[in-house]
Amino acid sequence: MLAADNLTITRKMVAAALREMDPRPIRDLVSRMQKAGAEIIDINSGPLTREPEKKMGFLVETVQEVTDLPIMLDSSNPKALEAGLRMGRGKIVINGFSLEPEKLARILPLALKYQADIVGYLLYPNGQVPMNAEDLTDLAIQVHGAAIKAGLDEERLIIDPVIAPLMWENGLRHNRHVLVLLRNLPDLLGFPVRTIAGLSNLTAGPGPKEKKQVLAQAFLPMLAAVGLSHVLLNILDPAIVGIAQACRTLSGMDIFTWAEVVI
Amino acid sequence: MLAADNLTITRKMVAAALREMDPRPIRDLVSRMQKAGAEIIDINSGPLTREPEKKMGFLVETVQEVTDLPIMLDSSNPKALEAGLRMGRGKIVINGFSLEPEKLARILPLALKYQADIVGYLLYPNGQVPMNAEDLTDLAIQVHGAAIKAGLDEERLIIDPVIAPLMWENGLRHNRHVLVLLRNLPDLLGFPVRTIAGLSNLTAGPGPKEKKQVLAQAFLPMLAAVGLSHVLLNILDPAIVGIAQACRTLSGMDIFTWAEVVI
Repeated sequence: MLAADNLTITRKMVAAALREMDPRPIRDLVSRMQKAGAEIIDINSGPLTREPEKKMGFLVETVQEVTDLPIMLDSSNPKALEAGLRMGRGKIVINGFSLEPEKLARILPLALKYQADIVGYLLYPNGQVPMNAEDLTDLAIQVHGAAIKAGLDEERLIIDPVIAPLMWENGLRHNRHVLVLLRNLPDLLGFPVRTIAGLSNLTAGPGPKEKKQVLAQAFLPMLAAVGLSHVLLNILDPAIVGIAQACRTLSGMDIFTWAEVVI
Repeated sequence: MLAADNLTITRKMVAAALREMDPRPIRDLVSRMQKAGAEIIDINSGPLTREPEKKMGFLVETVQEVTDLPIMLDSSNPKALEAGLRMGRGKIVINGFSLEPEKLARILPLALKYQADIVGYLLYPNGQVPMNAEDLTDLAIQVHGAAIKAGLDEERLIIDPVIAPLMWENGLRHNRHVLVLLRNLPDLLGFPVRTIAGLSNLTAGPGPKEKKQVLAQAFLPMLAAVGLSHVLLNILDPAIVGIAQACRTLSGMDIFTWAEVVI
């Protein structure tokens, strides 16, 4: 399942459109994303400290004017998330919670209240990325446990093992742990849990563009081969989308499909 | 481990040089293969029905004039293989045997006689590619069993699950079985058996070049992610070599390394 990460506040054009509440550039962008093969539109609004409800409402409404695709609400602000959930007419995915106490208390319950899917990040309660394989495995069990404890149907959960930038000192090692974890997750949790990874993270930071592209193009099929079901990527990059489509072809129906949740 | 498939009788230039016993074009080619990153030189001589000893001797000698890299002897003719083994000064890999009675009787014993590594193909005794996952698994057990029965140290064995061309009716399905098998092989056989796959097979036959490239570029990391240790590929294609190198970086030391056999 290809989730597009292009509608993000870190793009100047999106930030400007949001500031001026101008739907046109956003409509154009979303239309291009859909045409390029997006199957989920990620709305990365940032924290939206000012007017979170109004701003997220505007974003969701604008996206829905263009497409019926599922929307992923990508914000750490529970107020913004709830505004988006209220506005959503189609399938909404909350992106996301972790074991951080604030997120367990204020974001995870929204999935139950609005019967939405939710991404669970494998991070320590302090928000840090785990740097050994045992902790990563342990966090998967804990995130799943937290979702169950909150009353969520486990099929609502989408686990994000958090790809680390390769420029981090231990980024490469962490990403190898991610591959092993993804392979083991269905056995570990006892059901074919859905998973997502943000591919752009891999090559975040400075570095030669061409080398970054090759690394991303190699890592995506590796993730697919160990069972990743959703990937968040730059849908406007035809090369990586071509690789994603080849992965789908090669790995068959079991991978990169959207497992509909029966409510 | 990158094995280069470029020195093949199917190339007119190689066929002509072999016919005329002219070492120069072969030296040039091998030199380019080495410069491009080859770690094993596959000598695909074909069956060499005429003068197999002389021809294979010439090929091995010519390669050894240029490089000390390990050589893979890729022929179905036991006489040619034995000539190559006799001439080899460095590491030689026999490529290879299968459960075909002729190969069990005349090729597999060469590995023992010359203390060489040998590729075992997962094919039915009639030489056909198995078309279901159970048979593929069963063939892996049988090929390993045949090697043991012949007295071979199991660490000499390199299993080739045989990638099928996607243009075959069941090629796609077979290749998915290959991914599953590769993932399960160490558990199945009880040791980290080395494996090889011929990537060029995937897109053999007619078809748009660009689409073929993307499929190969996606399939190689998938193979790496499920534990493939050696790949036979076109080392003169910088795009696929770049992907292979990225796979090595991303998957760590355990994959794509040459496990030296302790004799």
